[in-house]
Amino acid sequence: MVAEGKTILALSGGVGGAKLALGLADVLPAEGLAVMVNTGDDFTHLGLHISPDIDTLLYTLAGLNNQTLGWGLAGESWQAMDALESLGGETWFRLGDRDLATHLWRTQALASGSGLSQVTADLATRLGVTSTVYPMSEDSVRTVVHSSEGDLPFQHYFVRRQCEPAVEGFKFEGIEKARPNPAIQALLASDRLAAVIICPSNPFVSVDPILQIPGMVDALLEAAVPVVAVSPIVAGMAIKGPAAKMMAELSMPVTAQAVAEHYAHNYPGLLDHFVIDQSDVKLATDIGRTGVKVAVTSTIMQSREDKQTLAQFTLQLVES
Amino acid sequence: MVAEGKTILALSGGVGGAKLALGLADVLPAEGLAVMVNTGDDFTHLGLHISPDIDTLLYTLAGLNNQTLGWGLAGESWQAMDALESLGGETWFRLGDRDLATHLWRTQALASGSGLSQVTADLATRLGVTSTVYPMSEDSVRTVVHSSEGDLPFQHYFVRRQCEPAVEGFKFEGIEKARPNPAIQALLASDRLAAVIICPSNPFVSVDPILQIPGMVDALLEAAVPVVAVSPIVAGMAIKGPAAKMMAELSMPVTAQAVAEHYAHNYPGLLDHFVIDQSDVKLATDIGRTGVKVAVTSTIMQSREDKQTLAQFTLQLVES
Repeated sequence: MVAEGKTILALSGGVGGAKLALGLADVLPAEGLAVMVNTGDDFTHLGLHISPDIDTLLYTLAGLNNQTLGWGLAGESWQAMDALESLGGETWFRLGDRDLATHLWRTQALASGSGLSQVTADLATRLGVTSTVYPMSEDSVRTVVHSSEGDLPFQHYFVRRQCEPAVEGFKFEGIEKARPNPAIQALLASDRLAAVIICPSNPFVSVDPILQIPGMVDALLEAAVPVVAVSPIVAGMAIKGPAAKMMAELSMPVTAQAVAEHYAHNYPGLLDHFVIDQSDVKLATDIGRTGVKVAVTSTIMQSREDKQTLAQFTLQLVES
Repeated sequence: MVAEGKTILALSGGVGGAKLALGLADVLPAEGLAVMVNTGDDFTHLGLHISPDIDTLLYTLAGLNNQTLGWGLAGESWQAMDALESLGGETWFRLGDRDLATHLWRTQALASGSGLSQVTADLATRLGVTSTVYPMSEDSVRTVVHSSEGDLPFQHYFVRRQCEPAVEGFKFEGIEKARPNPAIQALLASDRLAAVIICPSNPFVSVDPILQIPGMVDALLEAAVPVVAVSPIVAGMAIKGPAAKMMAELSMPVTAQAVAEHYAHNYPGLLDHFVIDQSDVKLATDIGRTGVKVAVTSTIMQSREDKQTLAQFTLQLVES
């Protein structure tokens, strides 16, 4: 389906993106998938460098993710958080005992001078992940949410305040000085690249931080490969996370069409295909006016097979 | 026994010192005991600020210490270390899941700008410790062991290499710029101070770092209160830790007398009383020649009552 030696580049945030990435990993050879992951959610907490989206990708691709919670590791225990709570410490960001090991390992590796890409590659190897997982940049980019309660660092908005404050906009601190991950730049400039798939992640806080790194969209356009985006909005709802709530607060219609328009407006000419759920088939014509080919299928990924089927569907678009 | 409103200052390292400190805490009113704790063993590990001796004191005084292991918390679990081991991370310094909370809490508090004294006081309160526990200094002092394998940071010698390398000497990095804890300086200069008790801690790596902070011995001498030291060497053996092995490697006799001579030589006139175990009674006369009054009792602290009895004994010396 994808020629031998060719690589698919997936752009992803956390949970929603990881589902499609897992489907892609299942149907592609190991060397056929590279995932470029948002690090705008990264933060330092309790002295530890935490990369939530990277960890979600790694845990999901390693089959270690906690499907009940939707985040963290399966079979997790919470002794450290319990003890921290009894100390009156900050426990709003729930760090499981086994998950803590990941953060301790990463923090030490970064402190010893390794870059986030190397650290992520090492972690992937140690967790048994065979696909390549890249942080979007070696540089620090930190998402700040302009909200009804003032500027909030992303995890404070997302986890601590449970997305309750109304969103007024976003800022990606440090992005003007950031560069796309050099390995991604090399992939984009090579003939190994077969296509780019923008996973059904939050457009504002997962995909935008990736695409707004200076030089990223130009490199994608110059790569001249098909770019496929999958809508994270289905029937007016976000499958996971605050995307729908954010759109309403930003006075956007909560539709797959508005997502397509967001991408078309901010990144003209970037998307070739836009995949919507069959429940949104009535929007296909209007979405097509943004300049993309609209593809309709079932985009809800509950089972492992659902993920593989959607992955196959996106890859077939690339071939078409 | 100790007049109301008066305070005993105990100088302590980890386990051995904590035993006597617990005995003192049991027989003194809460405000009657201040413990000045060695921080030369502190280190940064996996991104966390770890203060092993302070934690041993706090856990012991709070009744939370793991008596089986001799370190750490009772009822501990090891999920984070197991996960870190499966990542191939550094697990030679065993951090229990609940113990990790202490390090996370401290690391965050220090990062937010609090000094180690404030952080220690807060931790003590949160753990339910009523005695006052002071780090020896607000400044960083780091013990380095000159060994047959070269210079080793203390925890690398002590835990990672299990005290196997032969000791050739010690260096306390940063000590020349360190100052004694200001609260201790105030106590030493006040009329609240009743006596100083040097716990049966390792003379070289627990007590020496405290006493060699510039100004510390002068302040102790000026305080003009009784100073009592308890020998950590009993019948040619250390009750706990590498003191005996170190003495042999440093070509010292492994005796309580050699400990007394070490203190007399390095800190002339500091000790008033030197407490030895009854099994060393034959050394009393020779130890007396170092200029101290020698007191003989049972110094082995197994039961809680043993600790209280030895504490009472040292306090009676102070009164005499």
